[in-house]
Amino acid sequence: MNTASTESLHGVIPPLVTPIDDDGEVDRRSLEKLVAFQLDAGVHGVFLGGSTGEVALLDGARQRAALEVAVGVVAGAVPVLAGAIDTGTLRVVDQARRAQETGADAIVVTAPFYVSPHPSEIVAHFRAVHDAIDVPVVAYDIPSATAVAVGAGVVCELAASGTVVATKDSSGDFAGFRRILREAPGLPAFTGSELFADSAVALGAAGIVPGLGNIDPHGYVRLYEAAKSGDLAAAAAEQDRLARLFDITTVADRGRIGHTASALGSFKAALSLRGAIANAATLPPLAPLTGTELSAIRAILDEVGLAQIE
Amino acid sequence: MNTASTESLHGVIPPLVTPIDDDGEVDRRSLEKLVAFQLDAGVHGVFLGGSTGEVALLDGARQRAALEVAVGVVAGAVPVLAGAIDTGTLRVVDQARRAQETGADAIVVTAPFYVSPHPSEIVAHFRAVHDAIDVPVVAYDIPSATAVAVGAGVVCELAASGTVVATKDSSGDFAGFRRILREAPGLPAFTGSELFADSAVALGAAGIVPGLGNIDPHGYVRLYEAAKSGDLAAAAAEQDRLARLFDITTVADRGRIGHTASALGSFKAALSLRGAIANAATLPPLAPLTGTELSAIRAILDEVGLAQIE
Amino acid sequence: MNTASTESLHGVIPPLVTPIDDDGEVDRRSLEKLVAFQLDAGVHGVFLGGSTGEVALLDGARQRAALEVAVGVVAGAVPVLAGAIDTGTLRVVDQARRAQETGADAIVVTAPFYVSPHPSEIVAHFRAVHDAIDVPVVAYDIPSATAVAVGAGVVCELAASGTVVATKDSSGDFAGFRRILREAPGLPAFTGSELFADSAVALGAAGIVPGLGNIDPHGYVRLYEAAKSGDLAAAAAEQDRLARLFDITTVADRGRIGHTASALGSFKAALSLRGAIANAATLPPLAPLTGTELSAIRAILDEVGLAQIE
Amino acid sequence: MNTASTESLHGVIPPLVTPIDDDGEVDRRSLEKLVAFQLDAGVHGVFLGGSTGEVALLDGARQRAALEVAVGVVAGAVPVLAGAIDTGTLRVVDQARRAQETGADAIVVTAPFYVSPHPSEIVAHFRAVHDAIDVPVVAYDIPSATAVAVGAGVVCELAASGTVVATKDSSGDFAGFRRILREAPGLPAFTGSELFADSAVALGAAGIVPGLGNIDPHGYVRLYEAAKSGDLAAAAAEQDRLARLFDITTVADRGRIGHTASALGSFKAALSLRGAIANAATLPPLAPLTGTELSAIRAILDEVGLAQIE
Repeated sequence: MNTASTESLHGVIPPLVTPIDDDGEVDRRSLEKLVAFQLDAGVHGVFLGGSTGEVALLDGARQRAALEVAVGVVAGAVPVLAGAIDTGTLRVVDQARRAQETGADAIVVTAPFYVSPHPSEIVAHFRAVHDAIDVPVVAYDIPSATAVAVGAGVVCELAASGTVVATKDSSGDFAGFRRILREAPGLPAFTGSELFADSAVALGAAGIVPGLGNIDPHGYVRLYEAAKSGDLAAAAAEQDRLARLFDITTVADRGRIGHTASALGSFKAALSLRGAIANAATLPPLAPLTGTELSAIRAILDEVGLAQIE
Repeated sequence: MNTASTESLHGVIPPLVTPIDDDGEVDRRSLEKLVAFQLDAGVHGVFLGGSTGEVALLDGARQRAALEVAVGVVAGAVPVLAGAIDTGTLRVVDQARRAQETGADAIVVTAPFYVSPHPSEIVAHFRAVHDAIDVPVVAYDIPSATAVAVGAGVVCELAASGTVVATKDSSGDFAGFRRILREAPGLPAFTGSELFADSAVALGAAGIVPGLGNIDPHGYVRLYEAAKSGDLAAAAAEQDRLARLFDITTVADRGRIGHTASALGSFKAALSLRGAIANAATLPPLAPLTGTELSAIRAILDEVGLAQIE
Repeated sequence: MNTASTESLHGVIPPLVTPIDDDGEVDRRSLEKLVAFQLDAGVHGVFLGGSTGEVALLDGARQRAALEVAVGVVAGAVPVLAGAIDTGTLRVVDQARRAQETGADAIVVTAPFYVSPHPSEIVAHFRAVHDAIDVPVVAYDIPSATAVAVGAGVVCELAASGTVVATKDSSGDFAGFRRILREAPGLPAFTGSELFADSAVALGAAGIVPGLGNIDPHGYVRLYEAAKSGDLAAAAAEQDRLARLFDITTVADRGRIGHTASALGSFKAALSLRGAIANAATLPPLAPLTGTELSAIRAILDEVGLAQIE
Repeated sequence: MNTASTESLHGVIPPLVTPIDDDGEVDRRSLEKLVAFQLDAGVHGVFLGGSTGEVALLDGARQRAALEVAVGVVAGAVPVLAGAIDTGTLRVVDQARRAQETGADAIVVTAPFYVSPHPSEIVAHFRAVHDAIDVPVVAYDIPSATAVAVGAGVVCELAASGTVVATKDSSGDFAGFRRILREAPGLPAFTGSELFADSAVALGAAGIVPGLGNIDPHGYVRLYEAAKSGDLAAAAAEQDRLARLFDITTVADRGRIGHTASALGSFKAALSLRGAIANAATLPPLAPLTGTELSAIRAILDEVGLAQIE
């Protein structure tokens, strides 16, 4: 994919989970099935190696393996985005180059973390990655994971200098997201929010990158189409249904497992219950969900009308 | 070095900076000189690939190169500790194995980060690393970098199960550190604090892992010996002098660069001014200090009596 | 005003600033003028003693004086809300009773703060205030000030038990706000956001409580009417204009004054420049804006078309 | 007490709890008994209306009642400090004046809160309070409650200008506390830490303001005397015993009640179990401890050798 085509990034681009088999390796077959399921639902791209893909828990080999599978199944039908998410510039450049070689159409990059960067250092980081690779860079703001915000001001600066071709905003800060829409109107801006995607699209967001899209891509495609066509009532109704589905992320007992284990574990559990992947396992050190928690997820799937696929 | 010897980890173990040459590669010659300077000052170990060593900004090759140099120069004289600091278990195991192969005597591991782990998941992480390698593991608590605390309770649990052989506490939480001394009395506990090392050693800390030790290892060795021998007045006087030296970390204009760039940049600048390393450069994306800031550092070095070495 | 009428709380309810004269007393004349200006613009209520009213900096006498003036000028035309915002239950009950006596139609209450309450203790706090007074209670979530969130779950619980008759959400968390709309559909929910008020109203919010409404009540009334009538393009255009106006809150040099001084100082400065109040002074310990900063505010007022009133 | 005498503030100055009777009023008889118990144990001052005294939950009448009782029982034997702790300057001046009238020898003041002050605004706050009253001001840094740190730099500035005559540091930041000792050597500096009081006094702290001192003033007086006389082993042994006693603050189920309810509730429960006060009740909205939790506290009291008093 060339830069021109990524400039038109839009629509629903789910950050795919990375299915894991009993040996802890990437379950290629499940991932193939998952990608096919997404394409069949009409998604406009897929994102490998994001937070939902457990990027922080993958080693290089597994990260590459997952990307390879997706590139193969997608076969150019839609853009394939790949995360290059790490603490420092050299590491991110390494990841980005490998992803480019493996066939990614664009590289998704967060603020550097662990090293408490100043906004000017965040800008320098994105520039260095941009200069080191031949595919475009997408900014990714997720302070809940990195503990440092990219911020709307930096995103606008990166857009103005042509350093990034799009942005994914998982900050939860809707006011900041609207500042990007207002001050960088030419930049395709994606919300990472599962919960106010309709409002974002109605206001001009290019699209949605929802972790929950793994489980219900049809729902997010419907929401996107409705919001884009101006049918906000239909979009909001779909959003409310998806918000109920999102309750799967909070069934786990947080006295026992962490937030990430709870959320990503619920995504994989729901995909496994729907038959989209074989195994709900997450990577170490994330703790698994219990049988009771799985039952609660199953009940929510039933409630919102999500059956076994195929 | 075998496990028996790391059980007796003690004293001053500076987390060494990673000198970088004009091409952005590890400056092996500077690192050799720095290690020799440290050994000459009487340090009781060295720690490669810690936060001060810009571990989060190194790629694998540079991380290995630095460790190799240190292992070679140290030549068994003191323990060589190596950081395996990353977001997830698979990545940390990879790093730890490579460090073991390169000759590290013990592996220093933080809480996993980016993934908001529950304490039980932090425990699982340390156990998995412990089980994957043949050299001992040292716990490292640095929530200012990881945004998640290991916590005194988890450290005590890891000590009780034999999962770690020592701990480095850079939490700044002196009450928590004392809880470790009290509840895990058999565990060598090192403070990462540059600023209350005398109190820590007087109360039974096994030693000190001070970033500032790069610049003045003689000072920290004097402080350690004084505190250990019960001469608290001498230890406190040395501590006050080192606290003044630590002011180099705050000369930079924080409206321009981040905390890490300010602190690590000042360490490298001071080492460069003392002639211990050739070049004050840090790794991307950290911004450099200005000439004015370097002058302020030089003035502080003069004030506390630190001249050119050799 | 009776409970029945507050159940229909809706529309634009600006949290009024408290004008201060040269002696540090409430400038009653300016406040009369400000209230009249608001009513003339068509606001649907006024809120005295909120964060924007410097409630935390007022003593009891000034708090009462300001409320008295507003009750007098409003004379029953619209509801008058009054903040009872303090650290603990006894203090809040005292404030609430005084406000009721002074003529407030409803009392706006935050989570207790300084005392790190559990959600169940926040619920107990609201119940105790509810039981102690005869006018209805409005929940107010503003974690940026209190450092503790009320949270959507607690708001829904308070709505279900009839403890509160409305909620003001200044959390910035649009996903949480939508949860309240979804799970407590009978509760009038007001957004405190100046920056996504159009989206909130379009989705069913009862109204807006915008600090910026002091300066441009006409703008927020237009936005509210447009969003309510389904003309989202017009609402969004007005929102964008108001977002530009909101930039007055960031002109101050934050190396010199705090966030509150910067924001509230800019509101009073803009009101003073428009001639709505006589004096831009804030209460101690807030630092004043500089002449340069005032000029920047004047330029923004000009840009968005806000002239002297009358 | 005149300024000269507060300049020599030193030793153990417990921040007293405020006993509450069945009607929710200050239990004067219990407070008299508690003050007498403290004086009998040899404390060097008492502090009314601090965080431990539930200052944030008291109204003005109860705050004054408690101070009155203490002033009466102490009768000039030791200094009586009183908190004037509130969000803004006018409120704090009001509280401070009332406390002065009631007989306080010095007024203890935190950073203003709710209003995110800049350090220069914190300085202005302390100056305004200093100028408004005739008794000396003590700085009190407790960011866990106020969500804003005074900071060592501001404390040193306040000391240099004679604005405060002492400081209480409950920041938990031992490095910052040592900076005050180093850079404001003439300022009596008290640690609010229950857990590293021995180290603080050994290094030159003027004394200790420990909430836990309510329950075991004899222990803190022994610790203080030992640390001051240079017998650090004895001080540390006492500190370890008191650290075990401090475990009473963590017996409560934090899934049910907040941190403050857990800590202050345990103090009052232990005092009640020792017979020093009649009733363990806290003020609203703090939730009470359970019977099981009280039993756990009783077991700890037994373990560290604290019996019924008298």
